[in-house]
Amino acid sequence: MSPLASIVSAGMSRFGRREGLYWRELFLEAFKEVIDRCPNLDPKKDIKAIYLGMMSSEYERQGHTGATASTWAGLLPVEAIRTEAACASAGAAVRFGVAMVASGLHDVVLVGGVEKMTHRPTPEVTSFLATADDFHFDQWHGLTFPGFFALMAVAHFNRYGSNEEDLARVAVKNHKNGALNPKAHFQKEITLEEALKSRVVAWPLKLYDCCPITDGASLLLITRPDIARRFTDTPVNIIGQGFACGSILAFEKDFEKVSFESNVEAARQAYLMAKVKPKDIDVAEIHDCFTIAELIEYEDLGFCRKGEGSRMIREGIVELGGKIPINTSGGLKCKGHPVGATGAAQLYEIYLQLTNQAGRRQVRGAEIGLAHNLGGPGASAVVTICSR
Amino acid sequence: MSPLASIVSAGMSRFGRREGLYWRELFLEAFKEVIDRCPNLDPKKDIKAIYLGMMSSEYERQGHTGATASTWAGLLPVEAIRTEAACASAGAAVRFGVAMVASGLHDVVLVGGVEKMTHRPTPEVTSFLATADDFHFDQWHGLTFPGFFALMAVAHFNRYGSNEEDLARVAVKNHKNGALNPKAHFQKEITLEEALKSRVVAWPLKLYDCCPITDGASLLLITRPDIARRFTDTPVNIIGQGFACGSILAFEKDFEKVSFESNVEAARQAYLMAKVKPKDIDVAEIHDCFTIAELIEYEDLGFCRKGEGSRMIREGIVELGGKIPINTSGGLKCKGHPVGATGAAQLYEIYLQLTNQAGRRQVRGAEIGLAHNLGGPGASAVVTICSR
Repeated sequence: MSPLASIVSAGMSRFGRREGLYWRELFLEAFKEVIDRCPNLDPKKDIKAIYLGMMSSEYERQGHTGATASTWAGLLPVEAIRTEAACASAGAAVRFGVAMVASGLHDVVLVGGVEKMTHRPTPEVTSFLATADDFHFDQWHGLTFPGFFALMAVAHFNRYGSNEEDLARVAVKNHKNGALNPKAHFQKEITLEEALKSRVVAWPLKLYDCCPITDGASLLLITRPDIARRFTDTPVNIIGQGFACGSILAFEKDFEKVSFESNVEAARQAYLMAKVKPKDIDVAEIHDCFTIAELIEYEDLGFCRKGEGSRMIREGIVELGGKIPINTSGGLKCKGHPVGATGAAQLYEIYLQLTNQAGRRQVRGAEIGLAHNLGGPGASAVVTICSR
Repeated sequence: MSPLASIVSAGMSRFGRREGLYWRELFLEAFKEVIDRCPNLDPKKDIKAIYLGMMSSEYERQGHTGATASTWAGLLPVEAIRTEAACASAGAAVRFGVAMVASGLHDVVLVGGVEKMTHRPTPEVTSFLATADDFHFDQWHGLTFPGFFALMAVAHFNRYGSNEEDLARVAVKNHKNGALNPKAHFQKEITLEEALKSRVVAWPLKLYDCCPITDGASLLLITRPDIARRFTDTPVNIIGQGFACGSILAFEKDFEKVSFESNVEAARQAYLMAKVKPKDIDVAEIHDCFTIAELIEYEDLGFCRKGEGSRMIREGIVELGGKIPINTSGGLKCKGHPVGATGAAQLYEIYLQLTNQAGRRQVRGAEIGLAHNLGGPGASAVVTICSR
């Protein structure tokens, strides 16, 4: 089919501990890059709407994210709305941007997300993050996200014979990639031994199995495909997308098959719409909030058969230079996970890869890329497929 | 132009203090009505997505509103996303539902909003509501919403000669209408004297100039216009819509003209798209979070010339039986204002009016209706125009 929409520019703040800045300033850092990359853009004239993912307004006691962003970007009276789907909040913003453009209601929209997290004490951050979990059944009983993904990891170990080393290998790979990304939170490699010896957070997950708490913003400029070349000679087309939910309740998760129904359904929709198969994907950014999530997603997204995730990492298939490089940006693990920004930051990396701007981590000849953004206990998933 | 989308069913929980219930239960109460009104609907098969407005996840420490709703409604793995634009959060959800349907990405979507507020102490509620205001410039200096709208009222008095009695008349009218609405928070009339003698909250606003803190949910079932009659013989068409932002900063507001630029711009877009004029509107629900807001909106939405708002209420033009009955539901003032639900509850009333189901408050022969939903310090505004 013809593309749904085109990405014609993109921006991302540096990810990390951004002391002394508010989220609106990180948003502007990303917005400046969107403008700088797109000399043909007249922001005030061209941009018709802003859709911005943010998971929690509690970090800065600032809600009304859309109007705040529209005010700060000097784009008033442009329409602006916040989207929230936990860690998939920016994926949701992209989703709405695509729909707006595909509907003809708007021709050029700015979408993305932002989160400023590191200025709050870790226990507060943990409690804000936990609101992505069911209050009554999960938060109430103390099930945090490391705890939940640890349960998934044990189930995967038992059912499929994966192990702690496989998880550590995912961390090592993503740090190796992130070391090549000047905007990543961490820009250093780690060894398998360091990962395995890091302190246990929730067994079998250790410190290096968990993504960090990070500040950042990321944005994409999306247009109707037929006008994309007004803004750039190298648009990236969104050719398929799917969004699906799974239960918000941890006890309803599939610990038998060790899979998220949301992933499988969102991927099915996206592949169907894009008319491509998993084997056609040249590069992918997938949601490695914990290393075990990445392993499960290799399977849920169809890059291998169910249960074979560990083979993908053991055999180097997902490394830079492998058959399908995954999380070339460093992933959430090393690039960082400013929750509301992540879904757009993944597409930022796909945009760089498909326009041959990914520098030392460039996947040569990449033509089709996939981004996968997960929310909470696998309760929201967005899969977006792009082609150059 | 042809309609953007059609409303084929609608539901609203009873508004008020709903003790012992969680928001998900209010959501289900509204959802049950959507189903009951629409015998041809097979929810699991037909509904493709849920977009749900909620202003703050802090009331129940429950974010990830979309996935929670999708889980609780038994609609998994259906796509579900929360929208937030302060008090215009449900208006934003409707906006995205319209875009999804207009884009062809989905044919049937459930949109609306919910908020459960009354179980928290009032100072907490006030602080949650204040996140719709700029943190640095307004919250920080103690500017609450009653304070902000009081400033607008004083400016309007000075510039246009309106007065406290005009404000009280708005309250009296809305209570008179709300007394006819079995789902309204308050279902009783008040006298002009009671309103004028009620205690001062922020002069010139008194208790009866302020909407209450309320629990509630409201939903609309929206489809592509060409399939609407599969679900009902009396669809209501969405023929125009506009969304615009104004500054998040109180000091940047137009205290000279006493107008919200967001209102004016959103209305301009909606009228243009619908090809109707203010004089064509038969019934309207507008955002009377404070009585002064309703007065300003008569002007901003073009029902009278700038500065003539008080004439509309003095001369009974906006009463039931008047030339353009406004807030026949009782408005936010009397029906209540569960923040995230309000934008959809307004369209619920318009749906009832245009399908001749509004009972004792029916506007005879109403063919074109308008809903206006405002967020925060006039920083977000959505205007939706419907025809039967």
